[in-house]
Amino acid sequence: MMQPLKRTILIKNAVIYTLNAKDEVVRGNILVQGNRIAYVGEELPQIQAEREIDAEGNLVFPGFSNGHTHLPMMLLRGAGEDLPLMDWLTQKIFPLEDKLSDELAYLGSMLGIIEMVKTGTTSLADMYFFCDGIAAAIQESGIRANLSRCVSGQTMEEAKGRINDALRIYDTYHGAAEGRLEVGFSVHGEYTTGTEVIRKVCALARERDAVLQIHISETENEHEECKKRHGGKTPLGILESLGGLEGRVIAAHGVYIDDEDMERIAGRDVTVVTCPKSNLKLGSGIARVQEMLSRGVSVALGTDGAASNNTLDLMDEMRYMALLQKGMTRDPGVMDIRQCLRIAMQNGARGMGIEAGEIAPGMLADLILVNTKSSRFYPRQNAEAHVLYSACSQDISMTMIDGRIAYENGKIQFCDEARVLADFARAAEKLYR
Amino acid sequence: MMQPLKRTILIKNAVIYTLNAKDEVVRGNILVQGNRIAYVGEELPQIQAEREIDAEGNLVFPGFSNGHTHLPMMLLRGAGEDLPLMDWLTQKIFPLEDKLSDELAYLGSMLGIIEMVKTGTTSLADMYFFCDGIAAAIQESGIRANLSRCVSGQTMEEAKGRINDALRIYDTYHGAAEGRLEVGFSVHGEYTTGTEVIRKVCALARERDAVLQIHISETENEHEECKKRHGGKTPLGILESLGGLEGRVIAAHGVYIDDEDMERIAGRDVTVVTCPKSNLKLGSGIARVQEMLSRGVSVALGTDGAASNNTLDLMDEMRYMALLQKGMTRDPGVMDIRQCLRIAMQNGARGMGIEAGEIAPGMLADLILVNTKSSRFYPRQNAEAHVLYSACSQDISMTMIDGRIAYENGKIQFCDEARVLADFARAAEKLYR
Repeated sequence: MMQPLKRTILIKNAVIYTLNAKDEVVRGNILVQGNRIAYVGEELPQIQAEREIDAEGNLVFPGFSNGHTHLPMMLLRGAGEDLPLMDWLTQKIFPLEDKLSDELAYLGSMLGIIEMVKTGTTSLADMYFFCDGIAAAIQESGIRANLSRCVSGQTMEEAKGRINDALRIYDTYHGAAEGRLEVGFSVHGEYTTGTEVIRKVCALARERDAVLQIHISETENEHEECKKRHGGKTPLGILESLGGLEGRVIAAHGVYIDDEDMERIAGRDVTVVTCPKSNLKLGSGIARVQEMLSRGVSVALGTDGAASNNTLDLMDEMRYMALLQKGMTRDPGVMDIRQCLRIAMQNGARGMGIEAGEIAPGMLADLILVNTKSSRFYPRQNAEAHVLYSACSQDISMTMIDGRIAYENGKIQFCDEARVLADFARAAEKLYR
Repeated sequence: MMQPLKRTILIKNAVIYTLNAKDEVVRGNILVQGNRIAYVGEELPQIQAEREIDAEGNLVFPGFSNGHTHLPMMLLRGAGEDLPLMDWLTQKIFPLEDKLSDELAYLGSMLGIIEMVKTGTTSLADMYFFCDGIAAAIQESGIRANLSRCVSGQTMEEAKGRINDALRIYDTYHGAAEGRLEVGFSVHGEYTTGTEVIRKVCALARERDAVLQIHISETENEHEECKKRHGGKTPLGILESLGGLEGRVIAAHGVYIDDEDMERIAGRDVTVVTCPKSNLKLGSGIARVQEMLSRGVSVALGTDGAASNNTLDLMDEMRYMALLQKGMTRDPGVMDIRQCLRIAMQNGARGMGIEAGEIAPGMLADLILVNTKSSRFYPRQNAEAHVLYSACSQDISMTMIDGRIAYENGKIQFCDEARVLADFARAAEKLYR
C-alpha cells in the first residue's frame, strides 16, 4: 500500500479533552501528521504546517463514534410515524425496503454521512444490505466505518445468497479507502435467524478476525420468546453457545439483557451499543446502561437508523443517554460527564478495533472542535457540562477524520451538499411514488 | 391605554399549521395587523403591508409556550452537575441564590429570553424572586409572560415579606408592556409552604382572577411525605381543600400525581406542565403524560430552570416528551405529532389565559417560521414529522411575538445579544468568585 502523503495540520490554542487514561485536559496544541496525531501538549511545535488552525475559544474532543446505524434508512425518515412496531415494519419499512437499490442506498448513505459529520461523528458501524452503495458513500466521504452485510434467514437455504453477498462485500471492500473502511459480518438477530445460520456467520467473522454485529434483546418480546424457544437461553446465551462471543462483537440495543448476560460479556470483547432514542421511539424501553457499566460491561452509543430516531446526531443521543439513566435510576449522581464522553466518543471506536477515541500521539486523527462562543456556553464556569447538557451540534466547528478536514464552519468538504440533497430528493420522490 | 400602532405584516406562501379546532393546514398567507392575526387563507390580501415576508419553503406554527421556568437560573447553568438533589440544592443552588440581585436576575432573564426566542418560544410562565429584574427583561425583550413572585414558608410570619413582595409585584407590573406582562401568584410547593400560607396565596390569586403557579408532586418523596402528613391527601388534594383549584392553575411537573388527582383536575382550569428533561436530570422520574391526556387532563410543556435542564428549548423538550411517552408506555402509537404540537404550542398559552396557540383571525400574533431547507427536512414526504423528530431550533427562521418580529434569520431584534452576553459573563464571574 502506498504511504499516505504526510499532510501536517497544526491546531493551536485549544482546550483539549484527551480522554486518555489519566483523563488529562490540556490547554495547548495538536500536531497532526498524515492520518495520525503526532503531538499533543503545551509547547508549540516548531514546524511549518500546511495548515494552521487557531482554535482559541474551541474545545477539542475525539470524534463521536456511532456504534449502530443503518445509513440508507435516511430514505425512510418520517415514513410511518406513530405506528405500532409490526405495522411500521410490515406496512411501511419492508415495502419501501423492497424498492431500494444500490443507487438509493448510496444517496441515503451520503446524506446520512453528511449529517453525521456535521454533528461530529468520525466513525460508524453499519449493518444493512445494498452494501456496494453504502461502501461507495463511505469511500467518497472519507468517514471511517465498519460495514457489514446483514444476514438473516431461518435456514441455510434461505440465508445462502445473503452469506455469499456478505463474503463478496468482505473480499471487495475490507481494508479499502486507505484502511478507513473495514468490513465485518452481521447477524440480523436471533429472532430472524436460525441457529445454523448464526453459527456459520460467527465462524466467518472469527476466521477473519472481523467484527460481528448483531441486534440483541432490543424488545422484551424478542428476549422472552428466545428464552421460550431455547430452554431459558437468552439471545446472548445462544450467541455464546454458537461461538459468537469469541471474537469482537458489537451487540446493538441490549435493552433487555439480564444480569446473567452482563456477567457473560463483562471483560470480553463485546460492546453493547445503546440506542436510547430509537428504543424510546419504537416503544422498546430503556436499557440499563448504568447497571451494565457498574458490572464492567463496555457500553457505546448508537443512533440506529434514521427511520426510528430520526436524527444521526450523537451529541444529542449522548444527552438522552445521560438524562435517561439519571431519571431511571432516580439518581442524578450517575453518568458523570467524562463517562458520557467516553461512551459516546471512545467506546464505539474501541469496540470496532479502531485506534481512536483519545487525543494522544500515535492515535488516528479523528477529532472535533467545539466552538464555545454561543450563549449555550454561558456561564463560562463549566464548559464540559455545557457540551453534555446545553450545546448543540451547531457548535461543532470542525470535524477531522483520518487527518483530513471533513467539515469546517458549516461546510461539508468532501462533496457538494446541495447536489447530494437534490439527488436524494429526486430519488426519494420516486421511492415514495 | 393607548391603542397600539397598527403595524401590518404580510407573510406569504407559507404552509400554515393552524392548530385550530379542525386542525387545518393551509397553503397560503397570513396578515398581521397590530398585535393580532387579521387574516389566514389562500387568497392574498390586497393590502400595502409595512413588511412582506416571502415564506416559501417555510412552515408556520403558533409559537411555543413555556409553562414552567425560572429565568434567572440561567446564571446557575452547569453549577453542581451530577450531585444528588439535596446536595445540589444545599451546596450549590441555595448559596448561589443567596448572592442574587435584581441586576443579576435581569441579566439571567435576558439571556434566558434570548435563548427562548431563538428556539421559538413566544410566551412563558415564570416563578422566582427578584421579580423586578425579571420584569425588566420581559418588558425590554417583548416576550409574553405570566410572572409570579414565589412564596414559601411554613408560617405566615415567615412568609409575610414574600407575600407582600408578591402583592407589590402584582400591583406594579400586572398588565404592563401593553398587556404582554401579566402577574400571577405562586406557592413554591406543599413541602415548603404551610397550609395557612397556601390558603392565603390562593385567595390572593382568586380575588384578582390571576393565575396560580405551584410545583406539584415533582418527586415521589414529596408526594408520599405529603400524604403521610395529611392523612392520605396528595399535594393536589391539599391544594383543593385550601381553595386552590377554583381559579386558573399551572401545576408544574406532576410526575407523581395519581389517578385520583387526575380525576380531580380533569375538565378544570388546571394545566399540568410536564418538564421531562428536568425530571430526568434531577432523578425525579417520568410523568404519566399519556395517561393524563387520556383522562382529559390539560397538559402543557415546560423547561424548568436552566440549572436542571440545561436548555430552554421547547422544540427539543417536545421531542423528549414524545419519545419518553412512547418508550414508557411501550406503545409507539401514542403521542401523535399534532397532539405533541398542541401540548408544546397551545396548551401552555391557554393555561395562562393567553389568546394564542392557534393561527386564526383574532388571535394574538405569536408565531414562528420553520425553514425546511436543511437536510433535516429530507426526505420531503412528511414535514410535520421532521418538525417533531429531526429538526432543531436552528431551523426556526423567525419568531414573532405580539405582532413584532423578535428574532429573524439568526438575529435577535430586541437587543444587542453580544452586549448581553458580555454583561452576563461579567456578572456570572462575580457570582462564582
